[in-house]
Amino acid sequence: MEYDRPLFYHVMKYAAASQRDTVDMVSGNPDWGPPDALREGLIDYADSDPSQFQYPPSEGISPLRREIADRRGVETERVIVTNGAGEANHLSMATGLAAHSGTEVLLADPVYPYYSGRTTLLGATPTFVPVDEAGQLDPDDVRERASEETALIVVNTPNNPTGAVYGPDAMTEFVAIAKANDALLVSDEVYDHFDYTGEFESALSIDSDHRVVTNSFSKSLGITGFRVGYAVLPERLIEAVRTRHMLTNVAGSRPAQRAVYRALRETDRSYYERNRDRLRERIETFTQTLDAIGADYTRPDGGFYVLARFEEFPGTLENTKRLIDEAGVAGMPGEAFGQTRADWLRFALVTPRVEDATTRLEAFVSGRS
Amino acid sequence: MEYDRPLFYHVMKYAAASQRDTVDMVSGNPDWGPPDALREGLIDYADSDPSQFQYPPSEGISPLRREIADRRGVETERVIVTNGAGEANHLSMATGLAAHSGTEVLLADPVYPYYSGRTTLLGATPTFVPVDEAGQLDPDDVRERASEETALIVVNTPNNPTGAVYGPDAMTEFVAIAKANDALLVSDEVYDHFDYTGEFESALSIDSDHRVVTNSFSKSLGITGFRVGYAVLPERLIEAVRTRHMLTNVAGSRPAQRAVYRALRETDRSYYERNRDRLRERIETFTQTLDAIGADYTRPDGGFYVLARFEEFPGTLENTKRLIDEAGVAGMPGEAFGQTRADWLRFALVTPRVEDATTRLEAFVSGRS
Repeated sequence: MEYDRPLFYHVMKYAAASQRDTVDMVSGNPDWGPPDALREGLIDYADSDPSQFQYPPSEGISPLRREIADRRGVETERVIVTNGAGEANHLSMATGLAAHSGTEVLLADPVYPYYSGRTTLLGATPTFVPVDEAGQLDPDDVRERASEETALIVVNTPNNPTGAVYGPDAMTEFVAIAKANDALLVSDEVYDHFDYTGEFESALSIDSDHRVVTNSFSKSLGITGFRVGYAVLPERLIEAVRTRHMLTNVAGSRPAQRAVYRALRETDRSYYERNRDRLRERIETFTQTLDAIGADYTRPDGGFYVLARFEEFPGTLENTKRLIDEAGVAGMPGEAFGQTRADWLRFALVTPRVEDATTRLEAFVSGRS
Repeated sequence: MEYDRPLFYHVMKYAAASQRDTVDMVSGNPDWGPPDALREGLIDYADSDPSQFQYPPSEGISPLRREIADRRGVETERVIVTNGAGEANHLSMATGLAAHSGTEVLLADPVYPYYSGRTTLLGATPTFVPVDEAGQLDPDDVRERASEETALIVVNTPNNPTGAVYGPDAMTEFVAIAKANDALLVSDEVYDHFDYTGEFESALSIDSDHRVVTNSFSKSLGITGFRVGYAVLPERLIEAVRTRHMLTNVAGSRPAQRAVYRALRETDRSYYERNRDRLRERIETFTQTLDAIGADYTRPDGGFYVLARFEEFPGTLENTKRLIDEAGVAGMPGEAFGQTRADWLRFALVTPRVEDATTRLEAFVSGRS
């Protein structure tokens, strides 16, 4: 039961308390704001009849479920709308553990810390599979570690924190490994709108009753605080997941679902493209500076983050604080994500101040040399 | 893991599909609508900066937590804002089971079905304590069944479905029994604004680290679909509950929390009093008719519901459907709530059509005699 609160909070608090102006590159909160239709959806909703303020269907309001199902090319019945991808991931992991005999969860290292936290909370045991130099999770490594003890394989593509995007071959392999070991692949795809290579492949494209796809509108619509996500479930798990959702949360929040539905219907492609292009430019700006100052880094194929390593400045919590105090740049210590990137720092590029950060990092590094 | 979806949904679906106009007395959705300030809060929120659309603190936005803490006379640190009282109850039950050695959960019979559903989901065993004729849960009966196997005692006051309100003596006893058996009392008080006797006593007034109080704004502000609730926790459970909340839901929905905060600040007592008076009048109207047609019933001291029993017409699902088809009145079958009220029907008085329902019940009963 005991579990440290994610380091995120610790670092954000430290940065907020700093006397120095700090560029916040800690967490993955989009800075560009939601589309207009989302705001309009909330305003319209506010005038609704009293009945519209009451419980939505537990599995989500019907128009939103249908819209998601249409977009993903699945039956509406397979879609459950959740309190963000966080709940979708929790439900999928809990249900997958209950539905399979093993108690082992295969996770990449480095890993988004909530996956390992949930593993522990649910009484299961994590087995970490180190990613390769490029940040990719090699299916051969996953296959080697999978066994009848494996109940779940949890992957995240595009990846937080490595920026890796798993292509069709890797996804097909992950699903096959889950099936071969009577396990469930849980594929968290919340950064799917931020693929810079065109290589991204959703686990949905591989038809199997051994995979769940979780997603949300937190990143794609710039609304991490709305808590509207979803899972696409295989037939065999629908009833169990719906029951668990109902008994955990009863239902999600209706104003948020209504606003997301409106935004999905009325927001055109340019909104999504603009945000993806913006991230791409920031990545270019940031990695150019990392090149210039001689830092190691992994160029992200997708997502919001750059993992970087500075010579003789390992990504410990202590050094993260030093970077806040001495450079005015707040990142996340690599140790928050596991062992293999413990000496790296993660920088989230969801701030308009990426250029400020690069100037400060240059000054910091030249001051140390 | 397998658990029937609550009968609520089944009955509501049946009523909705009926050719006949039906007075919906199935579920506890307030029909009177939220206060104006809640709608205004949503509209104002819709114009916020992008940062206000991002993750709220996991434990809830600070102004709302402080407002709740002030109103309940507790430290802010003890309050966690949840996705409705449903999540608060789930978190409290899960954490209480993990923190105590037993695996038994004491529940009243009849019981709000989510409590027993959660007990099963969490791998614990329910022990049902029958209520007395008046619908009251007798502390002596609870004490008799409590043992070292007991991890949780879950009570609901004002009660759904019986309408019982537990006074100071009973609440003091419940807390003492929990303490004596190294268990946790979880007191769900979502109907606290609907006490018609003045006898209601929150478990909060009994200082103990063996009790959690859960509540929400679903009923008091007429917004069951917003999913804003809270738990007030003893010191020893704060960290474990916060961790579980974070790993289950990450956070609650920010627009809903913002709107609730505004509504709490700007809604005066007359809103609450008007709704309470309205319910009181409906109870009077409804029970007068039950008297007139010779039905048994329990007069509620609080809450939204009247349990009634008709001669030779037990409250089965089949008869519930007959009442929809033949009388145009939809209630809930007593069997949904356990054994002791299995031949009763529960009627929710959160509809402006209580008089229609009484007319129809009179005609139905006279047609059968």
